[in-house]
Amino acid sequence: MKFKRTERIGAIVKILSDNPNKIYTLSYFTNQFNAAKSTISEDLLVVKNVFEKLHLGKVITISGAAGGVKYIPKTSKAENEEFLMELCEKISDPSRVLSGGFLYLIDLIYDPTIAAKIGKIFASNIDYTEADYVVTMETKGIPMALMTAKAMNLPLVIIRKDIKVSEGPTLSMTYVSGHNSKVESMSLPRKAIKPNSKVILIDDFMRGGGTIQGMTGLMNEFGAEVIGTGIFISTTSPSNKMVQDYISLIQLGVKDDKIIVEPNLKTFKDEYRNEDLENSELGIELEDEDE
Amino acid sequence: MKFKRTERIGAIVKILSDNPNKIYTLSYFTNQFNAAKSTISEDLLVVKNVFEKLHLGKVITISGAAGGVKYIPKTSKAENEEFLMELCEKISDPSRVLSGGFLYLIDLIYDPTIAAKIGKIFASNIDYTEADYVVTMETKGIPMALMTAKAMNLPLVIIRKDIKVSEGPTLSMTYVSGHNSKVESMSLPRKAIKPNSKVILIDDFMRGGGTIQGMTGLMNEFGAEVIGTGIFISTTSPSNKMVQDYISLIQLGVKDDKIIVEPNLKTFKDEYRNEDLENSELGIELEDEDE
Repeated sequence: MKFKRTERIGAIVKILSDNPNKIYTLSYFTNQFNAAKSTISEDLLVVKNVFEKLHLGKVITISGAAGGVKYIPKTSKAENEEFLMELCEKISDPSRVLSGGFLYLIDLIYDPTIAAKIGKIFASNIDYTEADYVVTMETKGIPMALMTAKAMNLPLVIIRKDIKVSEGPTLSMTYVSGHNSKVESMSLPRKAIKPNSKVILIDDFMRGGGTIQGMTGLMNEFGAEVIGTGIFISTTSPSNKMVQDYISLIQLGVKDDKIIVEPNLKTFKDEYRNEDLENSELGIELEDEDE
Repeated sequence: MKFKRTERIGAIVKILSDNPNKIYTLSYFTNQFNAAKSTISEDLLVVKNVFEKLHLGKVITISGAAGGVKYIPKTSKAENEEFLMELCEKISDPSRVLSGGFLYLIDLIYDPTIAAKIGKIFASNIDYTEADYVVTMETKGIPMALMTAKAMNLPLVIIRKDIKVSEGPTLSMTYVSGHNSKVESMSLPRKAIKPNSKVILIDDFMRGGGTIQGMTGLMNEFGAEVIGTGIFISTTSPSNKMVQDYISLIQLGVKDDKIIVEPNLKTFKDEYRNEDLENSELGIELEDEDE
């Protein structure tokens, strides 16, 4: 089948966009579209422009034997702010406050579009270059953790609260949940994480940091290292948390008996990733091996 | 900012592909790209071709006041078979059999790429035209249910196994889990589902059907109707399940002490959706209101 230029470009955008961080070789596209390498190289230049003009992320070239082209999702600071401001407004709706002072948020954090956006923001602001897994603890963080794993092109690992005999030998440990100072347990099958791995932790909520600290401890039992942590909502109090190195998208506080919900961009190391990309970017001039 | 035709097409593909089943008006694109309606109409024709030529789904036109264009993900039968055959091969790996006869599958079903593909297959073979929610029960079905909800552009609802006081008034009920004939409980906040809703159930595993029957009962307590059920793996035994109307992607059986894992396409009403689309499709000739 022959494709027109416009069709090839549409198709390449679809393939790259559906598979962030996956490397596609030039040959993959030449086979797919029955086109010359020089033609595909020109197409990729246009594709690169589309992503940049619309601030959808970067399309970069990886040279070398395992080389090719890949799409890195990247949200802009302005886009993050706009999205988080809208979300904060929704969260601030008084009808969300339940008796006991709890906030009803599951309609938002289970929403596939919101979860996908949160995933892209985490992937844009946490350095996962060396990461092997995205790890979360059931249940409410799973949708955003899955979407983060999708954007980072990494496998997802879900820590369970009770031991599942159906998953084979399991490593369990206890931790103190900050919320009610209760001792809780978490467990993960032995097979879930390979030794010497590097992981990104994702969770929906952090008060004192006890859960993240527990997860970090569990990771260490697996011989794995936590190299980044993304939290959806963190509370202003206690200000002294058990975990220091994390980014949180939204901060939740109480002032004069009123709930204050604000974007928390100050925890973002917003620029490092942009810079990294500029440096590692080699342009889209793929080598034409035929010549 | 001005866009070239190739850039507009790439951008439209990205927007539609990232937001399945979301209706975009012609004006949305004319504003976005600062282009005439006739220009965008031509672009959409090309986009439609890209999706059809590559069997990525359909781009259809909706006429009327709330009209516009939307992308409906659709996997082909051949593609489903190939994907499920590969998956069955992985599942059949003897190293996956744990003591107690359990199968270790979480690395597969938590994989974002696999979950996304499963979601697209469910969305291609379950009629969700009237559906309001995708509903699953924690934990292992969540990734595939989220991806199904994403493909269907529906909110996701997660039934919990224990009652969460932090979610407000909650409806709970007990059910008999087929696996060990144990009485288990499930619960869902009152606010999670509006009365008179129609829902699609998604779960990762079905033996006797007790869980799905329980979920159906819980939905009825919410005044909601189950209009479709998608299961990832169902077992051959018992052949007489408590639930009749479902599709399952993979069938798992035991023959002469050997585990048999096979694609289960016979439960698919594979063609109806294709036909529906052909019928409802009005072509991409969007009306130009200016003329």
